[in-house]
Amino acid sequence: MEHKILSGIKSPSDVKALTNKELPVLAQEVRDTIVSTVAENGGHLASNLGAVELTIALHKVFNSPDDKIIWDVGHQVYTHKLLTGRYEHFSTLRREDGMSGFSRPNESEHDIVYSGHSSVSISTALGIAAANKVSGKKNYAVAVIGDGALTGGLVYEAINNAGRMGDARLIIVLNDNGMSISKNVGHLAKRLAVMRSRSGYFRLKDFTERAISRIPLFGRALANKLFKIKTEVKNMMYQSNFFEDMGVKYMGPIDGHNIQQLCDALEGAKLVKSPVIVHVNTVKGKGYEPAEKNPSDFHGVPPFDAGEGVIPRSNENFSEKFGEFLYNQAAKDKRICAITAAMTLGTGLQRFSEEYPDRFYDVGIAEEHAVPFALGMAKGGMLPVFVVYSTFLQRCYDQLMHDCALQNSKMVIAVDRAGIVGDDGETHNGIYDSAFFNGIPNITVFSPSYYCDLNNSFVNALYHREGPCVIRYPRGAELYKPEIYSCNGEDYQVFGDDDAEIAIVTYGRIFGECYKAYERLVAQNKKVKIIKLNVIVPIPEDVLEHIANVKKLFFFEEGVESGGVGESFASAMLENKLSPEFILTAFPDCFVKQGKTDSILSQYGLDSEGVYNTIIKEIL
Amino acid sequence: MEHKILSGIKSPSDVKALTNKELPVLAQEVRDTIVSTVAENGGHLASNLGAVELTIALHKVFNSPDDKIIWDVGHQVYTHKLLTGRYEHFSTLRREDGMSGFSRPNESEHDIVYSGHSSVSISTALGIAAANKVSGKKNYAVAVIGDGALTGGLVYEAINNAGRMGDARLIIVLNDNGMSISKNVGHLAKRLAVMRSRSGYFRLKDFTERAISRIPLFGRALANKLFKIKTEVKNMMYQSNFFEDMGVKYMGPIDGHNIQQLCDALEGAKLVKSPVIVHVNTVKGKGYEPAEKNPSDFHGVPPFDAGEGVIPRSNENFSEKFGEFLYNQAAKDKRICAITAAMTLGTGLQRFSEEYPDRFYDVGIAEEHAVPFALGMAKGGMLPVFVVYSTFLQRCYDQLMHDCALQNSKMVIAVDRAGIVGDDGETHNGIYDSAFFNGIPNITVFSPSYYCDLNNSFVNALYHREGPCVIRYPRGAELYKPEIYSCNGEDYQVFGDDDAEIAIVTYGRIFGECYKAYERLVAQNKKVKIIKLNVIVPIPEDVLEHIANVKKLFFFEEGVESGGVGESFASAMLENKLSPEFILTAFPDCFVKQGKTDSILSQYGLDSEGVYNTIIKEIL
Repeated sequence: MEHKILSGIKSPSDVKALTNKELPVLAQEVRDTIVSTVAENGGHLASNLGAVELTIALHKVFNSPDDKIIWDVGHQVYTHKLLTGRYEHFSTLRREDGMSGFSRPNESEHDIVYSGHSSVSISTALGIAAANKVSGKKNYAVAVIGDGALTGGLVYEAINNAGRMGDARLIIVLNDNGMSISKNVGHLAKRLAVMRSRSGYFRLKDFTERAISRIPLFGRALANKLFKIKTEVKNMMYQSNFFEDMGVKYMGPIDGHNIQQLCDALEGAKLVKSPVIVHVNTVKGKGYEPAEKNPSDFHGVPPFDAGEGVIPRSNENFSEKFGEFLYNQAAKDKRICAITAAMTLGTGLQRFSEEYPDRFYDVGIAEEHAVPFALGMAKGGMLPVFVVYSTFLQRCYDQLMHDCALQNSKMVIAVDRAGIVGDDGETHNGIYDSAFFNGIPNITVFSPSYYCDLNNSFVNALYHREGPCVIRYPRGAELYKPEIYSCNGEDYQVFGDDDAEIAIVTYGRIFGECYKAYERLVAQNKKVKIIKLNVIVPIPEDVLEHIANVKKLFFFEEGVESGGVGESFASAMLENKLSPEFILTAFPDCFVKQGKTDSILSQYGLDSEGVYNTIIKEIL
Repeated sequence: MEHKILSGIKSPSDVKALTNKELPVLAQEVRDTIVSTVAENGGHLASNLGAVELTIALHKVFNSPDDKIIWDVGHQVYTHKLLTGRYEHFSTLRREDGMSGFSRPNESEHDIVYSGHSSVSISTALGIAAANKVSGKKNYAVAVIGDGALTGGLVYEAINNAGRMGDARLIIVLNDNGMSISKNVGHLAKRLAVMRSRSGYFRLKDFTERAISRIPLFGRALANKLFKIKTEVKNMMYQSNFFEDMGVKYMGPIDGHNIQQLCDALEGAKLVKSPVIVHVNTVKGKGYEPAEKNPSDFHGVPPFDAGEGVIPRSNENFSEKFGEFLYNQAAKDKRICAITAAMTLGTGLQRFSEEYPDRFYDVGIAEEHAVPFALGMAKGGMLPVFVVYSTFLQRCYDQLMHDCALQNSKMVIAVDRAGIVGDDGETHNGIYDSAFFNGIPNITVFSPSYYCDLNNSFVNALYHREGPCVIRYPRGAELYKPEIYSCNGEDYQVFGDDDAEIAIVTYGRIFGECYKAYERLVAQNKKVKIIKLNVIVPIPEDVLEHIANVKKLFFFEEGVESGGVGESFASAMLENKLSPEFILTAFPDCFVKQGKTDSILSQYGLDSEGVYNTIIKEIL
């Protein structure tokens, strides 16, 4: 498909040069490009479709990168990429060595920060506004944030701080699609719904009048227009709302698919010259019918047929399996409650949420809250299970320390997407949790390799271990499973000849890859054994008995090396006067870029080929 | 001094049995006990004095521990301790093997959780209320939280979740002294001030009327009284306020030093049977004039003369020194900004805040916000320095990963109170940061031993290192400093005979202790060397060159063992085919209890005597 206008956009200044008639055509071309590319590569569809006109308006009104636009999370950044000189490379979206699906400063000067986690954009934008203020710059800092991200407490911290920085040029654009990742939660969602439903154009309060008196003549026409609007909607005004209570000005709601309205509102916001929130109503999935109808399903999608608009059903995977095991346990034990932080679908909890609504808590994007909330449930006699992605678990490190480990109450943290996640890249890989749990006392960490391990670990965590337990499992399906493998629920298992002087030690899903390499080595008459850790923190005490005769030990870890399980294993050996040659393969001190999971594992020597090569090189 | 009433209080039921005339006498006896004990042992004075009547009222109205009271942080828990059977042991407050200054379940069934970190109490109480709801219990969950804690985003996450749990029996008592730890920050503080200043008694809205219709006869008298009050204050009511916008009912303000008013209000709150906030005005330091006059100074105090009411000036220490170095650099470099999370005094930033108010940001108890805010400042061309206690830094682990390490922008995180802090115990020791930074890419971590190291590290961090840097330093003053020691700004230093086969490796303040042991060993003609790491993450590459001939290596670390620097060091040796005997002394997988710092270091073998004994045992 030819995109006459879009293909000519090399930078935001080209957007500014377009006529009012051309802008809706541009929007349509952007939409077409997004739908066809995401259908091909997978990606965040519905959220991006909702932000097309908003992004065009932002680049019309502001001068990026002097004015700095910070995209919260980045689920809405595709249009921005297309308008900032990246149209020609857009087909590489989310591909290895291709364009990221999130904001990435190494791609463009218009991407100010690396994004991927929620609710931080206002803080960053406020920092920029504060720096501008100190250094006397007149530029704007703009945070674009969805209604879902508002459930994160960081937003409140940022707005509370913005509220007292009266003369900072901070504009918060609330991209409110009333949906968020899954259904919005919390009381604030109700408040937003009330605001959203107000009829009429945006409202402006007395700050506009003050602003008008200060602006130079050429701005007066707009200002007068705004002033007229103000008078018209006076009767619609609220005396106060949530945001104004927190000290920022409020404008809204704005029709988020009317470029002219958006531009007028954003120009109005510039006049304010103090922190202001512009409330924009958008439709998630706008312009692509299947996504408009099922915006949650089309939030993040695998490749699909754009014509049919049906998302292929996912194969059996760890998330669904955990959801099933949790559901089954909850049927037997009425104390079991499930907690998620806005990830009901992604973590396989849909059925639980429908069957046991009284024991199901979606707390919003509020991981910090989830842990002390679980503690309270435990203190009240329940058995809370918090299911969360590894990368977002990072947000509640202190609560895991203070409200989980220190309390030593029974709760289970189910850590989904532990390890490499693939296409989402640096901000989503779950390769740090092993290291961070390593430094937290009292918590037992299970790292199952297969579904049966997962279930065993879960039952052990619930009933057969003291204190809080973590179960970490990867995105997607099981890797290679040896025919002889049977889950025995033990903390570790040894395969092969226990007298072997060559040992492989590993855990999690890459056990299968290690086992393949082991089979190849055995076929070559090498004497090798594999130790598979199921409990990784603390390292099972008696496992070192199996190291006594080992001369070369190869440790493979799908996690960061520094502070990780492999290093603890090495230290434990040395402290016990065991000093085999030690070859540790794990992720170095880095962030791992996007790509297919198997490709990344291969790059870092964590697939069967890499495991084999690492070993054969040392033992030939 | 004899405390006739207080000495007879063995449990909350004894409080309930007191007459209205006896209650103020009890309050006075509690105050006397608190002042005299804190003067002796040190502790949190002003905040505890402000909560005396409130605590008495809580134990009059609620049935602890069936009704569960959660104390946020625990800076106000002394009265609660005195009323729950701990009067006789109160003299051991904050002493080794004595009573904690915070809530501790191992002391009493009335202490529901271990407390010490801010802003989590509402989440925990909501969890209890949810569990009560699921299991059909009629008990209340009560969170007692200060206005300072409201600056933490966790509170907002909790209230947002409470707002939609309409029938949960959750009572939030806002103990508003308008002060918090230092001066309150953020726009919300202004809103609270407005609410606080309203004259008259507490107000009740229509929920009271609805409640009245549901309560049995015996409650009617009180209900009618409340109803009467309601009518009287009708004209004072606000149409809406911040808390009601978030979906919880609001009552207030209440005179926090009038026990009868407090009891009436709390009884009223019980009638509500849905989440309700009771706004209580208290005076920080109430009843002890020096503390009333200088509540910030008397927030946390060392032992002092209660008669004179003067706090002894603290000796030279790392916090003050860092504040001085930062101030000096900021005078030379106008890009330097300082950020604190409500710890201006504790981190030595007072002078900076006074001299450079335009470059000073107290963001409140909002560590999560501080890091992306610093990122924004860096993106705006400034040089942000975030000064924070080690234990509270835990709250921004994800932001350190996502908004600091991944971005790789220049910022400095100055980590105060790294290591053992002493009297505050489990929840305040900074023994985890080495391990957790170990697992985060891109960040360089300095761990200076002396003030001159601290300054060198700071200058290196600002100007001579790429990317974000951390400088961690302990509470209090330098330990032993060898005469021959000079700070050279290098990443590590080697002392003694580099051919020695016995090596001590260490970092941070305990270097002095290790050096003392080293001197003792040298005096006995032992051939020993010491390697002092100044950069601990990543481990300086070439330091391993000094291990080549080492036969026994003793690593001493004032931090948690698992995932820590010692383990990384061991692994690096083994990976480089170096395998000396390795004896690692660090904190095991545990939380370290309160006590004097030197005593704790001694208990864990980290003082000079312990270091000497560990070594001599192995080399005799």
